Amino acid sequence: MIKFGVADTTFSRVDMGKIAIETIRKLSPNSTIVRYTVPGIKDLPVAAAKLFEMGCDGVITLGWVGKTKLDKYSYLAASTGLINVQIYYKKHIMDVTIHEDESENEESLLNIATDRARKHAENLVKLVIEGGEALTPYAGKGLRQGYNHAGPLRE
Amino acid sequence: MIKFGVADTTFSRVDMGKIAIETIRKLSPNSTIVRYTVPGIKDLPVAAAKLFEMGCDGVITLGWVGKTKLDKYSYLAASTGLINVQIYYKKHIMDVTIHEDESENEESLLNIATDRARKHAENLVKLVIEGGEALTPYAGKGLRQGYNHAGPLRE
Amino acid sequence: MIKFGVADTTFSRVDMGKIAIETIRKLSPNSTIVRYTVPGIKDLPVAAAKLFEMGCDGVITLGWVGKTKLDKYSYLAASTGLINVQIYYKKHIMDVTIHEDESENEESLLNIATDRARKHAENLVKLVIEGGEALTPYAGKGLRQGYNHAGPLRE
Amino acid sequence: MIKFGVADTTFSRVDMGKIAIETIRKLSPNSTIVRYTVPGIKDLPVAAAKLFEMGCDGVITLGWVGKTKLDKYSYLAASTGLINVQIYYKKHIMDVTIHEDESENEESLLNIATDRARKHAENLVKLVIEGGEALTPYAGKGLRQGYNHAGPLRE
Amino acid sequence: MIKFGVADTTFSRVDMGKIAIETIRKLSPNSTIVRYTVPGIKDLPVAAAKLFEMGCDGVITLGWVGKTKLDKYSYLAASTGLINVQIYYKKHIMDVTIHEDESENEESLLNIATDRARKHAENLVKLVIEGGEALTPYAGKGLRQGYNHAGPLRE
Repeated sequence: MIKFGVADTTFSRVDMGKIAIETIRKLSPNSTIVRYTVPGIKDLPVAAAKLFEMGCDGVITLGWVGKTKLDKYSYLAASTGLINVQIYYKKHIMDVTIHEDESENEESLLNIATDRARKHAENLVKLVIEGGEALTPYAGKGLRQGYNHAGPLRE
Repeated sequence: MIKFGVADTTFSRVDMGKIAIETIRKLSPNSTIVRYTVPGIKDLPVAAAKLFEMGCDGVITLGWVGKTKLDKYSYLAASTGLINVQIYYKKHIMDVTIHEDESENEESLLNIATDRARKHAENLVKLVIEGGEALTPYAGKGLRQGYNHAGPLRE
Repeated sequence: MIKFGVADTTFSRVDMGKIAIETIRKLSPNSTIVRYTVPGIKDLPVAAAKLFEMGCDGVITLGWVGKTKLDKYSYLAASTGLINVQIYYKKHIMDVTIHEDESENEESLLNIATDRARKHAENLVKLVIEGGEALTPYAGKGLRQGYNHAGPLRE
Repeated sequence: MIKFGVADTTFSRVDMGKIAIETIRKLSPNSTIVRYTVPGIKDLPVAAAKLFEMGCDGVITLGWVGKTKLDKYSYLAASTGLINVQIYYKKHIMDVTIHEDESENEESLLNIATDRARKHAENLVKLVIEGGEALTPYAGKGLRQGYNHAGPLRE
Repeated sequence: MIKFGVADTTFSRVDMGKIAIETIRKLSPNSTIVRYTVPGIKDLPVAAAKLFEMGCDGVITLGWVGKTKLDKYSYLAASTGLINVQIYYKKHIMDVTIHEDESENEESLLNIATDRARKHAENLVKLVIEGGEALTPYAGKGLRQGYNHAGPLRE
C-alpha cells in the first residue's frame, strides 16, 4: 500500500495541508496519509525525513515565507535541506512554497496557495504511482503552479 | 526519561537559554535538561550535534545575529548547518534566532527574544512528547514567535 | 551497454529533453536512454539520483529558471544539489539551465535553449564514452553553450 | 594529553596563528599544538579535517577575507564547510574571520585581529578542557571578539 | 610515487591547465599528472572527485567565471562542492578561479590567470610533498595570487 506524507506549518496563513490531503485522497483513495505539522519552513526538512522513516513513498511540504531578506535566506536554507533529504532517501518531496510578497492582495494569495498545493499534490501522486514518465507528456509545456500556465514557446 | 538540550551563545544580549529552560521545566517537570553554551551562531550546529550525542531527544538553539550583511551570511551558514544536523539525527532542533535589526528599540528587542524563546521551547516540548500531530490543530493559523500571531487568511 | 539519463521539467517552456535525446541518439545510437520528467528545477537532483540508481552512466538535466530573485535562490539550491549528487555517484551530470531573463525575445530564448541542450548533450556523450581527456583539446578555448564561443584570450 | 590544531593562511595580513598558539600555550601549557598553514579561507575546512585526523581535540582557524562581493561568497562557502567539518567530527572549530572592510584603518584592523584571535583561542581551550558549561556564566552577556563587549540588554 | 590531478574547463579563455602542468612538472619532475577537462566550473567538483578516485594525492582546479549575478551563484555552488570533495577525501584541492570582471583589460586578465595558476600549482606541490608546515613561514604575510602581494600589516 502506498503511503504519502504531508508536512505543513503553523506559520502558514492558509491550511494547505488540508488541501493536499483532500487532493491525494481523491486521486489515490486507498493510500495512507501521514500528516506532520511544524512551526516553520526550516523545520520541514527534518519533518520530511521523519515521514520517510515512517515508510512514506513520497512527501509534500507546504511552506510559507515572509517578505524580508532574512525570510529569503531561510527559504534558501530550507530548500537546500529538502533537496538533501530527497537525495538521501531517493524519494520525491514536492516542495510547495508560498512567498507572502507574491501578491499584495489576500484573496489572490489564498488562490495562489490553494492552486499550488493542489497541483503539486497531483504531481506527487503521479510521480509516486506512475513513475518518472508520468509527467513526460507535459515536458517543456510551461506548466505553472499558483499561476496560469505560461505555455511552451512557439517553435 | 526525556532529555532536552539547550544551546545558547555568549554573543546574545539576552539570556534566552534561561527562558527556554524555565519553559521546558514548567511543561515537562520530569525531563532532564542539558545546557551547552558557545560563543556564536556558527558554533550552534556542533553544539546541537554534541547534545544529541549525549542522548537528547530534542534541542533548542538560541542565536543572536548582528546587523551587517556578513552577519546574515553567517546566519545562512548556521541555518544550513542546523538543518543538516536535524536530518542526520532525525530529531528536531527549534532554531530560535534574533536579528539585532528586528527593532531599533532595546526593550522591544528584549520582548521579541523572550517571546520567541518561550514559544519555541513550547513547540519543542510538544513535538518531542506528543509527536508530529501535536501542532496540527494550529496548521495554517499564521502563528508567529516574537510577534503577534498573523492569523489565517479569511477564506 | 551505455545508459544515459535525461531529466527535464514541465516548468520549462522548451522541450529540451527531446533535443537532448535526439542528440544522444545520433552520437551514440546503441546506448539506452531513460527519461524522467519532474515539475521544476528543485526536483532535478532527486531525479538525477534516481536515474543513477537505474544504472545510468551519465545524466543531463534540463532546467528552466524564472526571472525573480527567488527563482535565483531556487537555482542556487538546485545547483548545489546537482553537484552533491555528482559527488555521491562520482558520475557526470550536465546541468543545462536556461534563465528566462537571458533574453527578452522569445525566439532568441528558444535558440539559446536549443543550442545549449544540444551542446551539453554532446559534452555528456564525449565525457562518458571517451573520458576526461575527450574535451582537453578545447581546454581554455572559451567555448560557450547557448551563445557564440567567446574564444581564447590572445597570448 | 590534549592536542589543539591551529590552521591559518598566507593570505592573512596578520600572523594570527602565532597569537592563537601563544594564547593556547599560556592557558594549557601541557597540551600539544599542531599548526597547518594554507593559502586562503577556502582551504581551511580541509586543513581542519586533516588536523582532526591527526588527533586534535579542537581546532582554531584564522581566516582573512577581502572586500569584494566575491570574497564574501568565498566566506559563505568556507563557513559552510567549517560547520560541516565540525558536525562530521563532533568537535569544535573556533572560526576566527577578519574582514578587510571591518576598518579603513590598518592599526585598528590589527587590533581587531589580535583581540579576536586571542579571545577565540581562550574560548577553544575552555570548551575543549571544561566542556559545554564552561561558557554558560557568560550566556546572553553580549560578549564580542575584536570589539568591546556589547553587554546584555537591560531587563 | 606522487600523483597530481589537473581539472580545467573549455569555458575558460586561458589554458590554465597547461600552466599548472608545466609548473608541477618543473617542481616535481618525477610525479605523475592526470588531466581532466570539463565544460564549466559546476563540473569541477565531480572532476576532482574522479581524479581522487584515480589515486591523485592533490588536485588543482582551474575555473573561469562570467560577469553576471548568475555566474556568481554558480561560483558559490561550485566552491561549496569543491570544499565538500576536499572534506570527503581529506586531500587538498587548490581552487583557482578567474572572474571575468577582475579586469576590463584582456592582457591584464591573461596575466592574472597565468600568475594565479602558477602560484597555486606551487602551493599544491608544497602542501602535498612537504605537508601542513610548508607554507607556515608565509603565514600572515598577505600573499596574493594573480596580484602583487599585499604584505603584512605593520605591527
